[in-house]
Amino acid sequence: MDTLLILLQSLDGASIAKAAIAIGAGIVVIGAGLGIGKIGESALKSIARQPEASGDIRSNMIVSAALIEGVAFFALILLIVALFV
Amino acid sequence: MDTLLILLQSLDGASIAKAAIAIGAGIVVIGAGLGIGKIGESALKSIARQPEASGDIRSNMIVSAALIEGVAFFALILLIVALFV
Amino acid sequence: MDTLLILLQSLDGASIAKAAIAIGAGIVVIGAGLGIGKIGESALKSIARQPEASGDIRSNMIVSAALIEGVAFFALILLIVALFV
Repeated sequence: MDTLLILLQSLDGASIAKAAIAIGAGIVVIGAGLGIGKIGESALKSIARQPEASGDIRSNMIVSAALIEGVAFFALILLIVALFV
Repeated sequence: MDTLLILLQSLDGASIAKAAIAIGAGIVVIGAGLGIGKIGESALKSIARQPEASGDIRSNMIVSAALIEGVAFFALILLIVALFV
Repeated sequence: MDTLLILLQSLDGASIAKAAIAIGAGIVVIGAGLGIGKIGESALKSIARQPEASGDIRSNMIVSAALIEGVAFFALILLIVALFV
């Protein structure tokens, strides 16, 4: 029973939470990278197919990528807050 | 029973958190690599298809890649903060 | 029983953290390899398709690969810092 008690003392929840925050930050960037990467890819291919529409394509690319960026930043700020709470 | 006790004493939570931060940094780079890699790939293919649009394609590539770069750097800074918190 | 005791004494948390830092560095290089590999692959294919655009393709390849390189180096610096914290 003593050993279990020591396990619980040393393996405290705060560090497990910190571990999960670190891995969560990595998963956030995978999500943002997949999404913005797909948008950027199709924007560039679209400009190559229709160069005269490049202004329209660029503004739409920025709007949709900024939406993913916004969610990703908000999630990272949530994780930073979680570090200190 | 003594041996188990020593194992549990040495396996403190702080190093588990540090371990997860290290793995999280790797996951961040996988996300950034997937996203920026896809954007860079399509930029080069698009220039090959429409060389005269290379200026437009380059500026759009930099904008969308910089969005992923921003999220990735922010996540890495979060992880550095987590090291010292 | 003594040998097991010595094993468990040596398996302290600090070395688990160090082990994870090593694995994290490997994951960082996997991410950078996937991203820069995709960019380099398409650069070569694009030059093969449109050899007269090779200057444009090369400069764009360097810009996008440097973005991934930047994130990867920053992550490796984080891991070096984690070794000493």
